[in-house]
Order: sequence, then structure tokens, then C-alpha cells
Amino acid sequence: MTRAERFPGTLPWSEERDAEGRRNIAVLLAYDGTGFLGFQRQAQTPTIQQVVEDGLERLLKHPVRITPAGRTDAGVHACGQVFNFRTGARIPTARVPAALNSVLPPTVVAQGAASVPPDFSARRSARGRVYYYLMAMAPYPSPFTRRFSWHYPWPLDVAAMNEAARALRGTHDFRSFCVDAAAQRSTVREVFWVRCRLRRDMLVTVVRANAFLRGMVRAIVGTLVDVGRGKLAPESVAGILAARDRAAAGAAAPPGGLCLARVDY
Amino acid sequence: MTRAERFPGTLPWSEERDAEGRRNIAVLLAYDGTGFLGFQRQAQTPTIQQVVEDGLERLLKHPVRITPAGRTDAGVHACGQVFNFRTGARIPTARVPAALNSVLPPTVVAQGAASVPPDFSARRSARGRVYYYLMAMAPYPSPFTRRFSWHYPWPLDVAAMNEAARALRGTHDFRSFCVDAAAQRSTVREVFWVRCRLRRDMLVTVVRANAFLRGMVRAIVGTLVDVGRGKLAPESVAGILAARDRAAAGAAAPPGGLCLARVDY
Repeated sequence: MTRAERFPGTLPWSEERDAEGRRNIAVLLAYDGTGFLGFQRQAQTPTIQQVVEDGLERLLKHPVRITPAGRTDAGVHACGQVFNFRTGARIPTARVPAALNSVLPPTVVAQGAASVPPDFSARRSARGRVYYYLMAMAPYPSPFTRRFSWHYPWPLDVAAMNEAARALRGTHDFRSFCVDAAAQRSTVREVFWVRCRLRRDMLVTVVRANAFLRGMVRAIVGTLVDVGRGKLAPESVAGILAARDRAAAGAAAPPGGLCLARVDY
Repeated sequence: MTRAERFPGTLPWSEERDAEGRRNIAVLLAYDGTGFLGFQRQAQTPTIQQVVEDGLERLLKHPVRITPAGRTDAGVHACGQVFNFRTGARIPTARVPAALNSVLPPTVVAQGAASVPPDFSARRSARGRVYYYLMAMAPYPSPFTRRFSWHYPWPLDVAAMNEAARALRGTHDFRSFCVDAAAQRSTVREVFWVRCRLRRDMLVTVVRANAFLRGMVRAIVGTLVDVGRGKLAPESVAGILAARDRAAAGAAAPPGGLCLARVDY
């Protein structure tokens, strides 16, 4: 597998520069979000944005502002986050991942880079995002997956969860699954795919949508778990969507099980 | 999957007590060995034995000495370590894992327990041990597997490695693959199985033997890597075994990729 193949989708390669002579570079990023206060830079540290921008500044000798495809919350991981930034520095694009990794902590790792057209935005150009949510169903936690999964050793009716999941597909107002609805211009999103699948002891929930509201996947998973343990009927999802009220859906699943897996362009 | 099913093999269940009225209890243990100085108790801390014995003493209110199936080295992990200990305490065997986990760090986790006959020894009764060695072959390390694998982003001829591996099977003097041969009564061991298999970006080497010498799997993997990168011919393994000299084999692979996966009784 070559480095180029590891970049998701087929980003349009372009060495074109903007009015200030800068290239636009997209980077594929993986991180263990444990201990980070989320992606977005804020007063408190550490955040993913802060360590990446600090690393790029050290490398390129100029201030850098990165734009991510998704602003993951505190404790949430990514194996397929994408961000872009602009630079007039001479570094060859193929060398960006190794150079950036040399100044990043081992928990945040660039996996690839591409030169993209000046108008490309990792956020606005994205057509879809895929999140995985992992639940470890074994009786006792595993020291190997404990950082990346929610340990849930109680029985769940996966068929009922998938029945409820089907009702989430399509274009809906997901206000009931959003923690900061007031800050949003629109809480309408299109969910392409939601599915729970048990692989050995790990229940993997995959959610694919055009875009996500804040807390949306964790609210979806928490609601599906309520269905799986019999607290909610699978048919109740339509009513929860219609309520347009966060209190109508289930409690948020813990952040450590969530991972931004892929961004489609 | 029930708790009993998670215990490897079919240990003979027995509530029989020894002359001092103590039961013999076997425990299945998983641990992330990163940061531990190995299994065996020594002057410096932390070791797996020390945290487990301290935990059991806190639980059972009497001194406890545990016997493991394999004394893993510093930085080596286990998903299928087995140890046994004797106790006159009244705790039901089925409650041992949860009770022990409540006093262990989250990196060391009991996965099951069984009451076994008084003469059972996790070490002497074992018929075989299985180790996995993981090598992450992707161009850049993964923040999710970095603690449990050796990042090796260079090409390897896996077919040549497996040809060399075949020459290790059988009963041989493995002195060339042992770091403390002088301390051993015998350096003869029987290797049942050695095989390298690439799954996506992960090269998994599985080694199964009746018992292992200190440093044996890491020396085997280091030697196979020398074959895979063309430094050694696959046919050279017979000569390395015949040399009966640690310097004849390859350098030890790093400990973090190694995991004691299973013990057979």
C-alpha cells in the first residue's frame, strides 16, 4: 500500500498557489484522543488543533491555521480525520507526514498528505463523514481496547438496535440528537447509513452522514443502547426525531468509544 | 460467551483442598506490559507479579504467592497469561476476577478463574504456550496499535520468512535463541508451529512451543526479519541452531510487539 493510496477518496491533486503564493495541503490524521480536550483550540490545553498547529509552525517557521473536516469532542479518537492548511514553504508534500510526525506526540500521527486546489476546504468540501463507535461486550475489559471502546458487559438485542437504526436513515431534523442546537443554523442532516454489527466481543456501530451535529453519534448510540436493553421500543425513534428535544433521546454514550473513521470528498 | 468459556482449554475443575485447607485457583490474565518491568517480582517496581500479589493480599487478607505459566519480560504483553495461587479464603471462584479487577490498575485485568486440583501448577502443568508478535507495516505508526506492535515500515519477503520458520519447527537445542542459556538446565525445546501472516498492515508471527527460553520469541522474530529483508538466507536457520551461540541469531525484536496469547493444559 503506497502513501498516496492511504489517503481517503481521490482528492484532486493541484500544486496551484493562491494570491499570496501559498499551496493548499490536505493531511490525513489519526489520533488517540484520550487526554485531549477535543480537536478545537481553546484556552485550556492540550487540544489536537493546538499540537498540530504548534508542530506545523515549528516546521514551516510561520503561523499556521488548520481547518479540520470534523471537530471531534474531548476524548474522541480519529483514524481518518482530514485537515488542510496553506503554506508558502518549500517542503515537498510527500515529506509533510514524516516531518510533521517528528514534532508531534506519538498519540497524534499524520498518515498522508496531498496538494489540493486553492479552494479546497477539508470541512466545506467534504461530502460525507463516517464514524465508528466501539462497545466491548466481553465480561471484563481488555487492556488493549480499553482506551478505544466503551466496556458494556450486559446483553443487547442487536436486531432491535438495527431496526431502530433504520428509522434514523434519511434526511431528518436531528435536533433531538444535538447538544448545542441553539448554535446551529440548521439541525437538518442526511444520514446515509447506521448499522450495529457484533464482531467477536466488539459491537461496532457505523454511522455515515453528510455532516454531523455536535454530540450526534454519541446520542444515537446511547439511544440505540436503550433500544438494545429493552428500555425503548425500536418504533420509538420516529417520535424521538419528531420531538426535536435532546431530552427525548438516550443519554450520550461515553466519548472514548467514538472514532472519526473516514471523510469522503 | 460465558465467563467459563473464556478460560482457555478445559481445566479440570476441583474444589479439593490441600493439607492446609486451601483451594488452588487458576486465573486468566491480560495486561498491557508497557511501563512494567516484566512479570517477575524484583527489587524495582512495578512488575505484574507485584501488583497482582498486592491486589490478592488486599482482597484475601493473607500473603499470596502466584505461579505464572510464563515469566514475560519487561514491556511484553499478555492476553492469555495464566497463574495459580492457594487460598483458604471463602471467596467464590466465579467472583475472583471482578474482585481482583477492583484492586488492579486498568492495564492488568483478570479475564476468568477456575478452581483446580491441588497439584495443578500454571507453569508445570502447561503443555504448550502460544505467543503472537505484531509488526505494524504501514508507512506511519498507528496511535491505536503503537503500544502493542513494532512499527516496521520497510518491505519484507514474508514467503522467505515462512521458509526459514519451517526449519525452526521440531525439537531443537535453541541455545542460539536464548539470552540466559547458562541459567538453564536444558535449552532444548519443542516448537510446534511458527508462521508469519500479513493481515492488512499487520504482520503477525505466531509461535507455539511446549515451553520457551528467555528471549526466545524475540530472537526468532529478529532472525526472521533478517531473512525477510534479505540479510540472511532462509536456509541459514539450520546453521544458526547448530551454532548454539546467541550471537549467531538475529538481534532481539523490541518487547512491545510481543504478547503471550494462550497457554494450553
